[in-house]
Amino acid sequence: MAADAHRQYALKGSKATVVGGGVIGASWAALFLANGMRVTVNDPDPDIAAKVAAYVAGARPSLLALGYPDVDTANLAFEADLARAVADADYVQECGPEKVGFKHDVWAQAEQAAPQAALLLSSSSGIPASEQSKWMQQPGRLVIGHPFNPPHLMPLVEVVPSDKTSPALTARALDFYAAVGKVPVEIKKESAGFVVNRLQTALFRECVSLVAQGVVSAGDADKLVVNSVGLRWATGGPFFSFHLGGGQGGFRHFIEHLGPAIEYWWKDMSAHPVALDEATRALLIEQVERAYGGVAVQALSAERDDKEVAVLKALERPRQ
Amino acid sequence: MAADAHRQYALKGSKATVVGGGVIGASWAALFLANGMRVTVNDPDPDIAAKVAAYVAGARPSLLALGYPDVDTANLAFEADLARAVADADYVQECGPEKVGFKHDVWAQAEQAAPQAALLLSSSSGIPASEQSKWMQQPGRLVIGHPFNPPHLMPLVEVVPSDKTSPALTARALDFYAAVGKVPVEIKKESAGFVVNRLQTALFRECVSLVAQGVVSAGDADKLVVNSVGLRWATGGPFFSFHLGGGQGGFRHFIEHLGPAIEYWWKDMSAHPVALDEATRALLIEQVERAYGGVAVQALSAERDDKEVAVLKALERPRQ
Repeated sequence: MAADAHRQYALKGSKATVVGGGVIGASWAALFLANGMRVTVNDPDPDIAAKVAAYVAGARPSLLALGYPDVDTANLAFEADLARAVADADYVQECGPEKVGFKHDVWAQAEQAAPQAALLLSSSSGIPASEQSKWMQQPGRLVIGHPFNPPHLMPLVEVVPSDKTSPALTARALDFYAAVGKVPVEIKKESAGFVVNRLQTALFRECVSLVAQGVVSAGDADKLVVNSVGLRWATGGPFFSFHLGGGQGGFRHFIEHLGPAIEYWWKDMSAHPVALDEATRALLIEQVERAYGGVAVQALSAERDDKEVAVLKALERPRQ
Repeated sequence: MAADAHRQYALKGSKATVVGGGVIGASWAALFLANGMRVTVNDPDPDIAAKVAAYVAGARPSLLALGYPDVDTANLAFEADLARAVADADYVQECGPEKVGFKHDVWAQAEQAAPQAALLLSSSSGIPASEQSKWMQQPGRLVIGHPFNPPHLMPLVEVVPSDKTSPALTARALDFYAAVGKVPVEIKKESAGFVVNRLQTALFRECVSLVAQGVVSAGDADKLVVNSVGLRWATGGPFFSFHLGGGQGGFRHFIEHLGPAIEYWWKDMSAHPVALDEATRALLIEQVERAYGGVAVQALSAERDDKEVAVLKALERPRQ
């Protein structure tokens, strides 16, 4: 599907401006470059060029493995002035600090300086478009395009319009993300944390609860997830899985048969209050460090990226 | 690791009695046969032999793809009388109805009729060993070995002792499941639903909440999970993922930085009550059927099994 969209969509030579060159921005930059786009990174950091170049170099093997053409770093530029950076942009992907004031300033300037046809997109995981666009003259020009880290590797982009976002923009954002090889999903209403962060945080809450109760260690909780629902949800989501869990009767049979057990577990889970207080944090940190502290995070991350690429390829979701 | 355990462990020719030949029992039977074991299925259903044979035939391609030797169905037998079925068993894997009375009867008989050295194991997802063993003369002889469906394919087995279970039995059960190629994890305390069913139910609760609020459809919720946390958790669990999410500062940095956002989302999630009442069930059923109703569950399941095998192979977790 991504490949089809790619064929219909003229990305090559178009220009993306990435506002904020941290890990999210650098990853978007790598992905856009791999799609043959020109990329300008807007960031006040004087060392930004070296940092982004290093990130892009690190992302190259994964992008190649997923079937993208090689990155041409001649297409990568830097411009510390926002108005100049967005002046001829086709796409503005904002990845700056998660501070409301920063977002307000960026969009107030960008809507003036960017071409009227440019897509204005924010990677924010927490500040919805309704809030970010508060001081824009045309708040309908902004939509959230929230990736899952790192964006060059993880397929999902949550596209979250505000109630002011123009439906045409939402449609164009969905097309754009599909064209660069992502799996965009439109979220119908703004909610705190959008969808995926809420879902992973819901599961994490019960992990914390069970570790705090002494039922399982943090390391074993990970082992449990990877070898069961992780594997399962890599191939089909929770509703799909329960649909198959119902056998020939599908989800209807499943929910009628197992609904009472599920509600009983919900009640039991709610009965155990969970808070990230000092003692709980210390317990979790100690257990996580015991499980993984022996190896540098960077090495673990590289290994994890390789595994994710291998899974994507196994599921025939590489680029081509 | 499984392969190492296999070398040290004499499975070939040993005997497993599977009590209850439904889908879980038949799947265990297929796995045990693929390990060169003799298997006797104990089930009152007069058609049980045909049903189990059909299941085993269906499981063969996945088992072969995972590197197990081919199944020899000459090692598969049936015995409707429980005492006779377990008389010379090395392992008794109970997979009968989830009814307390049934479990009490099985274990009261099995502990008399099975050799003293036999491992008594229950696949129950909901009735803990402390309850099942209530009328046993030696309640220390029973431990839960709860698989994730289907057991011949999914790596995880939750090994859940009661406070009476002999630690030696727990250790032997862990060794046995590793030897047949599973990833057993010991759960330190009995809790309702053990661990994984609680975790997946916690995430499912928030899925139901967001569908009920109109934030996302059931089909899109699945798409969101598969393309983000599903892929991620197939390669590393939630604590590991957050450890990497903290960058060089690891989990400590992550939880200090994002703890407040997580607690805010927890609060927001709790503020939306969720119940599987008639209207909610109808909404979910309608959306799931719209997403997946066009294809028979059996075909979807076969496709899903193939994908899971592909992911396991990509992660280098096949049998050999």
